[in-house]
Formats: sequence, structure tokens, C-alpha cells
Amino acid sequence: MPAGPAASRRVLGRRGLLLGGAAALGGGAVGALGATASAEPPPAPVAAAPQGPVGADAVPFHGRHQSGITTAPVQAHAAFVALDLRPGSGADDVARLLRLLSDDAARLTAGRSPLGADDPELVALPSRLTVTFGFGPGLFDAIGRPEQCPAVVRALPAFATDRIDPRWSGGDLLLQVCSDDRLPLSYAVRRLVRDARGVATVRWTQRGFGPARGSEPAGTTPRNLFGQRDGSKNPEVGGALDDAVWVRDGPDWFVDGSMLVLRRIRMDLDVWDDLGREARELSVGRSVGSGAPVTGGTEFDEVDPTAVDGDGFAAVPPAAHALRAKARGPAERMLRRGFSYDDGPTADGAPEAGLLFAAYQADAATAFVPVQARLAESDVLNLWVTHTGSAAFAVPPGCAPGEYVGGRLLEG
Amino acid sequence: MPAGPAASRRVLGRRGLLLGGAAALGGGAVGALGATASAEPPPAPVAAAPQGPVGADAVPFHGRHQSGITTAPVQAHAAFVALDLRPGSGADDVARLLRLLSDDAARLTAGRSPLGADDPELVALPSRLTVTFGFGPGLFDAIGRPEQCPAVVRALPAFATDRIDPRWSGGDLLLQVCSDDRLPLSYAVRRLVRDARGVATVRWTQRGFGPARGSEPAGTTPRNLFGQRDGSKNPEVGGALDDAVWVRDGPDWFVDGSMLVLRRIRMDLDVWDDLGREARELSVGRSVGSGAPVTGGTEFDEVDPTAVDGDGFAAVPPAAHALRAKARGPAERMLRRGFSYDDGPTADGAPEAGLLFAAYQADAATAFVPVQARLAESDVLNLWVTHTGSAAFAVPPGCAPGEYVGGRLLEG
Repeated sequence: MPAGPAASRRVLGRRGLLLGGAAALGGGAVGALGATASAEPPPAPVAAAPQGPVGADAVPFHGRHQSGITTAPVQAHAAFVALDLRPGSGADDVARLLRLLSDDAARLTAGRSPLGADDPELVALPSRLTVTFGFGPGLFDAIGRPEQCPAVVRALPAFATDRIDPRWSGGDLLLQVCSDDRLPLSYAVRRLVRDARGVATVRWTQRGFGPARGSEPAGTTPRNLFGQRDGSKNPEVGGALDDAVWVRDGPDWFVDGSMLVLRRIRMDLDVWDDLGREARELSVGRSVGSGAPVTGGTEFDEVDPTAVDGDGFAAVPPAAHALRAKARGPAERMLRRGFSYDDGPTADGAPEAGLLFAAYQADAATAFVPVQARLAESDVLNLWVTHTGSAAFAVPPGCAPGEYVGGRLLEG
Repeated sequence: MPAGPAASRRVLGRRGLLLGGAAALGGGAVGALGATASAEPPPAPVAAAPQGPVGADAVPFHGRHQSGITTAPVQAHAAFVALDLRPGSGADDVARLLRLLSDDAARLTAGRSPLGADDPELVALPSRLTVTFGFGPGLFDAIGRPEQCPAVVRALPAFATDRIDPRWSGGDLLLQVCSDDRLPLSYAVRRLVRDARGVATVRWTQRGFGPARGSEPAGTTPRNLFGQRDGSKNPEVGGALDDAVWVRDGPDWFVDGSMLVLRRIRMDLDVWDDLGREARELSVGRSVGSGAPVTGGTEFDEVDPTAVDGDGFAAVPPAAHALRAKARGPAERMLRRGFSYDDGPTADGAPEAGLLFAAYQADAATAFVPVQARLAESDVLNLWVTHTGSAAFAVPPGCAPGEYVGGRLLEG
């Protein structure tokens, strides 16, 4: 039952939101936008605003972890490309593919043409290009190690509010390619896909964007297409981030890796447009402008579920998104690294846009799944968002020069 | 007869290109990339590299000319949205539409919500947002002034090398929306289209990109997906640019306007990839890296058709793109303001990418048409580019506060 205009208008009023209407909103579509977590200080700014040309900035490909996960600030552009292995592909094919693509990625992210290409101009300014690989269930099956695929990656639970379209879902091998500039991003995707063509086909491609580099002061939280600051409560750089994101307990090939859940969340922007500002803010529990709780404070403060207004009524709806999405403990924490998408307008002028919600976490079974289950049960935002695509991937650790991503799985 | 790999391999060799093979290349697809014009000094840098946050930068909407034409440097992102008027629309409908959209555009480009909207956060950082309107033949017909539509806008000639797909062609009213940031661009398109929905439907939308702002030093010529610098020979800011772009002789409503020709040019990147560097450079007559003529010099020097190599052979193929595209006089000059597009890869991993060639000129009949006719006749690049979309628009002059774009036509 996707929520339509009539449903949303039922809760336009503040009283409607506060007096129980919102508590019964499970069963609509589900969002995980601007979600909150346990109290902690605001994250420190992670990079200075660019001063002069920044196109040559490069992010190292090799390392303990893959790049493109905690790389901050998030690059301005992303392409998520899901590949399916051709039928009959085996461990040798996959190993050869990953070795080749890792070599391509190492060269491209350093601003160099991949082997066999001669296009230094197209990637000389990589603009913080990163390439991140994720493994779907089909890859584990193809290499004959199906038991190594985490159960939650093999099958995310179905949520009551899902309206999943297969054309934005699943995939054996994910390429997440990010850059502040579309030219090197476009070139990297083209070369990686070209080198994968013998072994894999393209299942889907989804492109997203965030703020242009240099448009805002360093450390500013990006805004989504609802105008909300999205990611204010991400784990702060350091221990909390490391704890949330990286696999510590697991098979050797997976330690220092992560899990990625990618959800395509369509926003019903026409209906959102018709909401008053107060209703928008109560639906989340936060001010659109500042990101602060509607009851006051700063962007990085928690929303207080016990606050009351002058009449003694709850100041924040119990089904406000910020309250429902808040992590109930460290195991629920995840790094939101999403991008807006806009594939519209349709022929009749309707928006076709939303959020590519991308969350990294050590274990999606203890993080994304319980949070999303709570949102599917009840979240005011369900009236204006619909999950239309879903994919999960095991993200292997990084590799050293001369090695390749996934090598410890393939040769373990 | 789109050129395939076999055709292109015929000219892989330098001798093949030089000894007549290339002279017979008309009949393939046609490009107008990296085109050249009469000799003139390099353009002066037009803006300093950004220092610190630049999101608040705004381009005035009101003025003698519309913005988004000579606005420099070209913004990083563009959306071209072609609208068709609903059947039965008349002059009153069109006037009301243009008045509303002009008001929207004035507010949005200044970083403010349009009337009836309450989303200051989504456009507070316009990042040099511009909105430019162009009128297609159907608009002139709808308002009962068909004779006011320039003949070349009503019907561009068909070129032998065209492979035009109607879904990227035509349109009654063009919105060209540009910004350095995708968020305000997305918002502006959404609001403009929403306000147009009562009177118009969306015929097509095409999105393109250029270099991210701040990635390169100011004044650097952008590169296309072939890696070539594209636009090196654009008219320099000042008299040459004004002469090339702005309508001087014409009906009152059109003076200080321009004409836009938008061509979707697909690049056969797989085949281009397989070319050696020398063949790529000879096909254009210029070095890919520097943009300088293959016979030496700098990016802004002309290619010399009479140069010979040590053996006395022509140093540049007579059908090299730079020689064929060079303006034969001032009337052929135009301002190239194109953007790359990338809608790929296809399911089988093939690229689906190229150039949204956008050229502004005082009269397309004396500029784009003869240049493109020459390229269609013979241009080595025809082997790797195909025109798959085509649209032309009369671009009215700008307006003052309180007026609207097209007012002099509608109320003239």
C-alpha cells in the first residue's frame, strides 16, 4: 500500500502527527534518511575547503581497507555498477577478473591509464577517484564457496513496506566508483566494465550525486532532495567509525572488510512539496534548515522523545523518523554514504528522484536489518519514501600492491 | 552507413589517413567536436579558481541577454529539458507560462525558493545556476506567429550522415539549466517543470557534464570523452564573441537574442579505444594532450593544411576534423558550449556516451549549417561519431525585472 496524496494529507496537521495518526503509519513505504544514533560529539571537519585546482587530488587504492568507504568528505558523484558473472564462470575466471580490475583500479585512482589503454588525459585529474568492490551471493557460488557468503548478504529480509524492482536489485559483483568529477568517473566505469565484459554482464547502473566539492565549508553535512541534512549522526571518525564499519570477527578473507547495503529510495517529491514546513519537520523530528531537533539545540544533538509543548502534548511524534531510526546500541551503527539520484522528470512532468541509500557496516544483520525493520513498522517518512531497489554485498578488505581485492578469498 | 570497426581500421595507419583514404570519409557519421575557427589570440581566463566555498555564487538572471550563454567558465552540469505545449495552448497560455517560469528562474538563480514553494535549503547554494529559454517552431505556431520563427529553427537541413532519433529531437520550449552543483540544478528543473505541467509535457531530458569547478586552473579548455580539448577556438570574450553569438539584425523581439543548435553526438568509444594515439591525433589534426596542431605550436594555433613531413607528404590529412571544421569567415563562428553525456553502459557492457554539442550563434543558417554540411561531406571523425539527436531554438533576449523572457514576442 504505497502512501498516496490522500494518506499524506491525513497527517498534514501537527495534531494529527502528534496524536496517534503517525503511530499507525507502518505499512507504507520505508525510509532510512537522516537517521540518528547514540549521542556523541559532532564529527571533526575532515578536509579543508579546496584552495585552487584540486583535480589532481588522489586517494590511494592500496591499504588495509578498501578506499571509498571512510573516504571523506564523500565525493560529489558516484556510479554503482552491478555485474553478473556469465553462466559457467568459475573460480579461475573470477580470480583473473578481480586481479585485472584491481590493477585497473590502482592505476586509474592514481591518475593513470589502465594497462592496454592510452588515455592519460581522461584520468590525469582523478579528483579523488575511488573504486570499491563488493561481492554478492552469485560470486561466492561461482567460486564454489557458497558457505562464505554472509547469510544477510545472501538474503536481506523482506520488509512489509518494500516495493522492490528487480532491475535495481541484486548483483554478483558491485563496482562503486566515486569522484568529485564526472569525467574520470565516466572513464573509470567504462574501462572497468570493458575489462569485465568477457566474464560478466551489466545487471544495472545507478548514478548519484552529493554536494560539489568546494560548494560548502568543510565538514558540512550534505542535504538530500527533501532538503534535510542527511548523515548528521554518522559515527565520528576514529574508534566509533572503525567499530561500526569494519569486520573484526569473521573468516580471514573478510577481516578488515565491511558490508554494504544499497537501497534505492524513491521520494514522492510532489506530495512532499505540498506539505507545510511544520509537518515536514515534525515528520523527521528535526528542523530542515539547521538539522537541529525541533525542540531546539544543534544539528548534532539528539531528538528528545520526552519533550512536551506548552499544552503538555508530546513535542515530537513518536513515529518521527529521527526517533525510529536512532541506533539502539553500538551494533546498530552504520556509516551512511548515500547519494541523491534524479532520473526525471517523466513525460507528464512528475519527479523520478530520491536517494541511493548506501550504508557500510560490520554486520548488516545487527545494523541495517533491525533499524529498517523498525522503520518498516512505523515511520512518518514512510508516507513520502518508497524502497524500490535493494542489494547487499560483502566488501572484502583492501590489498597491498601486487595483490588484488578478494585474493584472500580466492586463494584462501 | 554508420562506420563500424572494419571501416575505422582501414584508416588506422598514418599513410592511410594521409593518402586519400580519409578524403572519402563523407557518408559516415558527422562530428563537430573540437572545431576550429579563424586565427585569434587565446581567450583570457574568465574567472579565478575558486578559493573556499563557492556554492553561494550567483549569476544574475535579468539583463540584456539571457544568462547561461556567455556565462563562463561553463558550469559543471547541465540539463536540457524540451517541453511540448499541450494541444490547444494559445498565446495567453504561453504568455502566462513564460511569465511564471521567468519569475521562477529569477528567484531560483538568486538562491531563493520560487513562489508557492518553501525549500530555501535546496537552492540556497545556487552554484552559478542559470536558466535559459529557447523557443521551437511549435511555440511560434501556438501563439499564432508562425512567420516569426526563423526558417533554420523551423527545419535544420538533413545531413547525409545524420542518424537522428526523434526521442532526442525537437521541442516547443527548451529549458537549459546549468549549475556547478547537481542539487540546485535538480531542484530548479523540478520546480520549473512542475510549474509548466498545466500547459506543457516533457518531450525529452538530456543531462551533461563538464569539468568540476575548481578541478583545473581558470581558463583551461574542457576535455570531451575522446580526451580532446573541446572549444579551444571559441570566439574570445569581447567583440568577436558578441558578433558571433548575438542577433543584431532581426525583429525587435529577437535582437540581443541568439540561436541554439543542440546535437546529441554519440561517440563510438570502443572503436576509438582501439585506435593508436597517432591515428587519433591525425584524425583531428591536433595533439590529444596539449590540443596543439600535430605539426607543433600551442593549443590556440591553427592547424596548417600545407605542412609536409620529411618525405614531402602532407603532415595533416585533408579531412582532419580541425581543417574541415574551421570557420571560413566570421559568419560561420559560433560559441560551443557543449557537455559530455554518459548514459551507459548497456547490459552487454558497451558505452552509451558522447557529447551534447550545444552551439550558440547569431544565425545558424550561416554558422552551424555550412560547417556541419562540410563535416558531413568529409571528416575523419565521422568514423567514430554519430549525430543521434537534433534540435534548434530561437533564444530570445534577456529581460528586466518585472518583465519576462519572450515578452516582446508575446506582446509585440
